[in-house]
Amino acid sequence: MPHSSPATSVARYELLARELEQQIAAGVLRPGDRLPSVRQMRASRGHSPSTVFQAYYLLESRGLIRAVPRSGYFVAARADGVLLAEPQTTQPQPGSQTVAVTDLVCEILGSARARDIVPFGSAFPDPHLFPLDRLRRALVSSTRRLEPWNMVEDLPPGNLRLRREIAKRYLLHGLAVATDEIVLTHGAMEALNLCLNAVTRPGDAVVVESPTFYLALQALQRLGLRAIEVPTHCREGIDLGRLAQVIELYRPKACWLMTNFQNPLGSLMPETKKRDLVDLLARHDLPLIEDDVYAELYEGNAAPLPAKAYDRRGLVLHCSSFSKCLAPGYRVGWAAPGRWAHEVQRLKLMTSLSGSIPVQAALAEYLQEGGYDHHLRGLRRSLQAQRNSLFEAVTRHFPDGTRVVRPAGGYFVWVELPVAVDAMTLHRTALAQGISLAPGPMFSARAEFQHHVRLTCGQPWDATHERAMRTLARLADDAARAGIAEHAAI
Amino acid sequence: MPHSSPATSVARYELLARELEQQIAAGVLRPGDRLPSVRQMRASRGHSPSTVFQAYYLLESRGLIRAVPRSGYFVAARADGVLLAEPQTTQPQPGSQTVAVTDLVCEILGSARARDIVPFGSAFPDPHLFPLDRLRRALVSSTRRLEPWNMVEDLPPGNLRLRREIAKRYLLHGLAVATDEIVLTHGAMEALNLCLNAVTRPGDAVVVESPTFYLALQALQRLGLRAIEVPTHCREGIDLGRLAQVIELYRPKACWLMTNFQNPLGSLMPETKKRDLVDLLARHDLPLIEDDVYAELYEGNAAPLPAKAYDRRGLVLHCSSFSKCLAPGYRVGWAAPGRWAHEVQRLKLMTSLSGSIPVQAALAEYLQEGGYDHHLRGLRRSLQAQRNSLFEAVTRHFPDGTRVVRPAGGYFVWVELPVAVDAMTLHRTALAQGISLAPGPMFSARAEFQHHVRLTCGQPWDATHERAMRTLARLADDAARAGIAEHAAI
Repeated sequence: MPHSSPATSVARYELLARELEQQIAAGVLRPGDRLPSVRQMRASRGHSPSTVFQAYYLLESRGLIRAVPRSGYFVAARADGVLLAEPQTTQPQPGSQTVAVTDLVCEILGSARARDIVPFGSAFPDPHLFPLDRLRRALVSSTRRLEPWNMVEDLPPGNLRLRREIAKRYLLHGLAVATDEIVLTHGAMEALNLCLNAVTRPGDAVVVESPTFYLALQALQRLGLRAIEVPTHCREGIDLGRLAQVIELYRPKACWLMTNFQNPLGSLMPETKKRDLVDLLARHDLPLIEDDVYAELYEGNAAPLPAKAYDRRGLVLHCSSFSKCLAPGYRVGWAAPGRWAHEVQRLKLMTSLSGSIPVQAALAEYLQEGGYDHHLRGLRRSLQAQRNSLFEAVTRHFPDGTRVVRPAGGYFVWVELPVAVDAMTLHRTALAQGISLAPGPMFSARAEFQHHVRLTCGQPWDATHERAMRTLARLADDAARAGIAEHAAI
Repeated sequence: MPHSSPATSVARYELLARELEQQIAAGVLRPGDRLPSVRQMRASRGHSPSTVFQAYYLLESRGLIRAVPRSGYFVAARADGVLLAEPQTTQPQPGSQTVAVTDLVCEILGSARARDIVPFGSAFPDPHLFPLDRLRRALVSSTRRLEPWNMVEDLPPGNLRLRREIAKRYLLHGLAVATDEIVLTHGAMEALNLCLNAVTRPGDAVVVESPTFYLALQALQRLGLRAIEVPTHCREGIDLGRLAQVIELYRPKACWLMTNFQNPLGSLMPETKKRDLVDLLARHDLPLIEDDVYAELYEGNAAPLPAKAYDRRGLVLHCSSFSKCLAPGYRVGWAAPGRWAHEVQRLKLMTSLSGSIPVQAALAEYLQEGGYDHHLRGLRRSLQAQRNSLFEAVTRHFPDGTRVVRPAGGYFVWVELPVAVDAMTLHRTALAQGISLAPGPMFSARAEFQHHVRLTCGQPWDATHERAMRTLARLADDAARAGIAEHAAI
């Protein structure tokens, strides 16, 4: 019987719609949350596709949820039911660009240092989220076993036990990376710098996302490289069509990308797209420096794979660290540089001799003891709640015309403000009120994204954060209105 | 009475000569040791200048001691009384030079890693010479007091307590360096790299000593800089006359020098010469990157001052670390970059974010507890004995035509072998016998010093070292004879 009786059917989808409405009202389903797919609803609840569709249409017509093409249905953000749109795919100016990021980056990083600032501009999560006591105990017990000879033996590629533990984690995620390929570094930043150094010469062009992590721009500047900024989607990452074009046009020597929870966008490149990316690069024999420091901060059951998982030709130089997920301030990172492993190891030796022996030994000890995954589960729960709170506050308080998408991992939320809002001015007025943020121009070689900000949800959410978000929203709203008024007056 | 009676006088100087001869025979005064000056002899023993001079002339005529102009008298080296000459002032080819140091440096550093090698090629002293247990305790107690907030607060310039302790040590040595000028780094190597980065642009020329530390050459290469190698004296350091000329001729943008116990020469620039150096640089407004990692490893009563002590214009970027004198493998160094302090701090933040927080805290704790100077006194005694043993072994065993000078600090001895000896071949034949050394071409942008080697006396001397030195000497002697025979056959 293809069609059930109308009475029964109406009751079912209405019941489902009512149930979902209650969950939204109770905050179980929160603004930006994705609703279960039709298939999931059938599997878990036994609902027929038509029941689910009709329930969702009903909720959509009431403004409670919103369809996003090819992504599904999401809980709408506002009391009035008007969901904020997601940021547009970026449209950087074409061409390659010499890089000169100003003291702005230092100013922003410095402003995160004062304890009384609400650190929406910080690049770091709250250090209380990390197992600092257990790390300390690992430091104590590992240094007790440290032999003097380690001071010489742990020259690059670095502490063997720690490299083995890292190789084991790769394996856990389904990647076969040899212990010998891994080079331990002073944080991911050194790994990225060494990899960039290994695959480029001054004057070369390097592909980056738009917007991109400011320290990537800075690294390009230091090595005399040119940046090619490629359009990037707020959920799905870099535009592969455009990437293919710029490879033909500008013959870059490398790409530097964040496939998982890109900083600042929060985008997560789908697995098939990662595979296509690696195929494209392989056709041009083009190395990919993959900055993958946020992968462990995912939602759901498994970490997203890096592009390196699809690399068969040693073209991906994978870089990561323990700074964002385990041990901030310890400064232990690594590179798995594919066919450039020897060269990166050589550069590490030449640049800074070795890593810090005691902290490498401590992390090896911590990882061998077990408990890392337990810690990560807690950290992921905290960050997910914090992402929800920040996203909800933006959607609830920020002025009309704001665009935002709820990222599926990491701890950054990228906000596109109404065009009239100048992010640099907002940064200054907010800082005067004790709130930091990261203005959009930090993330572009051409100081684009002038009405964008990156907000960090690295801290457990409380009334202070809620208040600060209201203040930020008011300042943004004032700026938007003033901008419109100014425009009208001209 | 200007002249004492001949009988008495003869007796006195002969008695003194005989006494000294016995001390030499007993090994109290050892090859290369400087004899007390005439003034010291008068002050300590009441001898008249003429008594001392006559005693010294007598010993010199017997080949037991040797006069070195403007330096005094030294104990001759050999049983047969033939003292080895000191290495000649280097004569690098003029002009600036692009740098491409090969994998040789990696190979040499790597060869020091095997435990069964006699490490005359090592860049590191024996780790047992350091207070690793006390450092570990400092690590334990300091991390106990570490607040999570430190992870953010200790961003560059780095841990405030440690910077204060470093500033206090400068003060102890008579230098006023502000806590705020000090930027903590990942070892001295990062400090040097950041300073070089701060004062140059790709294509610039930089003055270095000849021979020079291979990682300095490597740093120049990485930044696309050209090296100007300037003649350097084995005891007194760089030739200031030639330096003045190359400044006029090639307009370098910086100098990178080691004024105290230069690696590999072991030269120690006299204080007046340091003053003249700083005056010369000030006239040209030319920055000096001063690599000063060995200053604490001096002989006598006080550490030699760095050139920075004479700098009134903020032109000296002073770099040092705890790696050679306290905590190898911890990788904590610093720069006091004069007028470039802000720029170096900015570069540090951009390059690697921060130092490792726990190890910085541990060193601060260790220094505050006291005991550092006690450790240093012991370390200096050990290294002095090891320098004596190595120098003595060279002078006793090495072939005629070898030139060597006993350095007054550090743990390197620079040996100029007979011209016929190829240092690279010697390196390979020695390694096959389980002995490493650092061949001269490592220390030159043009692979000069082809019959020179640097030997490390970082380990407490024992029969193994003595045997290895005999082996080395035999290999060098074979090479010298083969070279001469080959030459005769042509």
